[in-house]
Amino acid sequence: MDITAQMIALAKAAKTAARTLAASDGLTRNRVIENVARLLQAEAPVIRAANDKDLAAARAAGLDAARLDRLTLSDKAMTDMIRACHEVAAQSDPVGEIESMTKRPNGLLVGRMRVPLGVLCMIYESRPNVTIDASILCLKAGNAVILRGGSEAFHSNQALAAVLQKALAEAGLPAAAAQVLPTTDRAAVSALLKLDEYIDVVIPRGGEGLIRAVVSEATMPVLKHYKGVCHAYVDQWADLDQALSLVFNAKCHRPGVCNAAECLLVHEKVASDFLPRVAERLGGAGVELRACPRSLPLLGAKAVPAKDSDWGHEFHELIMAVKTVDSLDEALAHIAAYGSNHTEFICTTDHPAAMRFLREVDASLVLINASSRFNDGGELGLGAEIGISTSKLHAYGPMGVRELTGTKLIAFGDGQVRS
Amino acid sequence: MDITAQMIALAKAAKTAARTLAASDGLTRNRVIENVARLLQAEAPVIRAANDKDLAAARAAGLDAARLDRLTLSDKAMTDMIRACHEVAAQSDPVGEIESMTKRPNGLLVGRMRVPLGVLCMIYESRPNVTIDASILCLKAGNAVILRGGSEAFHSNQALAAVLQKALAEAGLPAAAAQVLPTTDRAAVSALLKLDEYIDVVIPRGGEGLIRAVVSEATMPVLKHYKGVCHAYVDQWADLDQALSLVFNAKCHRPGVCNAAECLLVHEKVASDFLPRVAERLGGAGVELRACPRSLPLLGAKAVPAKDSDWGHEFHELIMAVKTVDSLDEALAHIAAYGSNHTEFICTTDHPAAMRFLREVDASLVLINASSRFNDGGELGLGAEIGISTSKLHAYGPMGVRELTGTKLIAFGDGQVRS
Repeated sequence: MDITAQMIALAKAAKTAARTLAASDGLTRNRVIENVARLLQAEAPVIRAANDKDLAAARAAGLDAARLDRLTLSDKAMTDMIRACHEVAAQSDPVGEIESMTKRPNGLLVGRMRVPLGVLCMIYESRPNVTIDASILCLKAGNAVILRGGSEAFHSNQALAAVLQKALAEAGLPAAAAQVLPTTDRAAVSALLKLDEYIDVVIPRGGEGLIRAVVSEATMPVLKHYKGVCHAYVDQWADLDQALSLVFNAKCHRPGVCNAAECLLVHEKVASDFLPRVAERLGGAGVELRACPRSLPLLGAKAVPAKDSDWGHEFHELIMAVKTVDSLDEALAHIAAYGSNHTEFICTTDHPAAMRFLREVDASLVLINASSRFNDGGELGLGAEIGISTSKLHAYGPMGVRELTGTKLIAFGDGQVRS
Repeated sequence: MDITAQMIALAKAAKTAARTLAASDGLTRNRVIENVARLLQAEAPVIRAANDKDLAAARAAGLDAARLDRLTLSDKAMTDMIRACHEVAAQSDPVGEIESMTKRPNGLLVGRMRVPLGVLCMIYESRPNVTIDASILCLKAGNAVILRGGSEAFHSNQALAAVLQKALAEAGLPAAAAQVLPTTDRAAVSALLKLDEYIDVVIPRGGEGLIRAVVSEATMPVLKHYKGVCHAYVDQWADLDQALSLVFNAKCHRPGVCNAAECLLVHEKVASDFLPRVAERLGGAGVELRACPRSLPLLGAKAVPAKDSDWGHEFHELIMAVKTVDSLDEALAHIAAYGSNHTEFICTTDHPAAMRFLREVDASLVLINASSRFNDGGELGLGAEIGISTSKLHAYGPMGVRELTGTKLIAFGDGQVRS
């Protein structure tokens, strides 16, 4: 069987399984997820052995320490996966919820029922825990899932796939509801991305290159974010103590993540008060400040002039671009030009400025007087997330269980015909 | 300027206009739509002259009567467009609505605000009234729109574009918020479909060939339906008088549309009572019945044996496939195999059967005891629609103004940082 035929068979099996899953009850799907938790514990030695195989190959191939770390299924990684199972099982089941029923003049009751999306395909890079974290969210929402992890995690992912399939079978659900590709052949991914007849949505997670490749090949919708270039805007009417604490948290709490702030915009009326404090607090914490010509003299000796390429750049480390702006208008224009539709926040005590920022900034999360670090499913109350989407279609922001479902229209009639 | 550069310039202008539109108030957007209504009246002679030019060329090219009819901007077509403007202007403005605000343990208020999708691209076939109907819905929802109609309607669409741009300019909004492609070059469409940096969603309307071509080329999400293969299932516990009236309406009310029924499934327990009545009522109305071997003898002399290709076929005329099934399970399996996720209905008085059909059938609208003909934005209370989507992502079913928006997350804080 060639690779295309093999992928068609796999995707067809997923679609058939999705129908069973969509009709299954929430208790059965929770049982699968609890089975996963139990089997992760029971099969830990097998999983570890597979992971060791991947790690040995990765070391031999000279992978850097950061990538080796992401590849490792440590005790903590195993415990985290098990905890995620318990948390997801405890969430309420969105499938079958009826959101509203309104009555038409002819007596027809019309509403929306929440339904699974169908078959999801996850394409991701090295971290094998995604195999479990993504699968349990998909299964909870009644979806079948096809997983394609990093080739360096191949054996780990196969071992985790065995856990998933055993967990499904034990609960009487089809094993094809969670399938890990049995090959690392790149052609398999290309073949899958053409199968919009069977696959409803693709979620790539990883570097911008991976995501752009998926977008250009896929015939089905792609839920994704390329990068997180988040701005902090300190308005003329900001509480500067609070603003400093917010900017510090947004930049320094975890600089390597997508909801960390990359650029500080300061209103000119407060620049001379605020920027020296930024230099002291953030500079003191080791942040390199790359400043526009107006900000530079206010930031002291350690700041450096910003280059054009620093605006809109995701540094992923302790570096921050700093720009003094004339007005809220200029801040909004800068964010529109350089933002990545991920997370943006304003520090202000002025109600009109706050509400205008809220309305006009186009980002998956817009905050008033709170740190960009809150753009996370858990922090926002959505529960565990499968990723953050920066496309406005369907889900804009973190995607939890609910965002892995859609709604269909339903109607209760008693003989209505259209005339 | 080559065609790609020209399309990039056009899409960039649309994106800039979308930012202005998103920040505009609903009154201003309504003024644009009322301006369109007034200008359609005032500029009718110019529009008619352009349409006559298209019609003359179409006649010379030998277009058939049905296509000429769709191309004609008759008095009725003009009046309908004007009425649509008034109706859409009268709808409430969804942009900026806040759907809910819940409080997190740290005091952060988190909710969702309804926002425009951004830039929409409509690709459609001959009917020039779509240029107006689609544009006013997009503008109402705060979106910019790029339109590419059928090449045979080129002059008509240019005249309608002039109306749209004048209407925008009179209200102080950028003309680039509604642009009709200034060329019929197919390469322009291919270039546009790669511009996911500027265009948020594509909506193709037309034949399956057009839609498949768009899906395979587009890098941005596509909202679409390929076809409507709708089933009527008459259950063992159906009220047969009511069922007959529903099946008749679903098949005969307007057989050429996507929500007409194409296939009748009848439970074996009622087949011998029901099918002779179907033969009399539908056969009497000129419907050709193509029946499975069990149904055939019950349908009388005029029925013909169904071929394999009749199952899952969209006839678009007075033809109906008929199949006797053993059970609800078989009906559900048939719909899963041959349905098009468009519209499906059950006739039954049995509550468990009704609820199971409702839950398990995967279609944009599932009805109990009502005709499939109700799958229409106006009939379901959504207002005018831009099309019907059969993808579960984002909007499943008719897409009205509300479905042309999305939500972003918003948060009101008072200094919250993440620890």
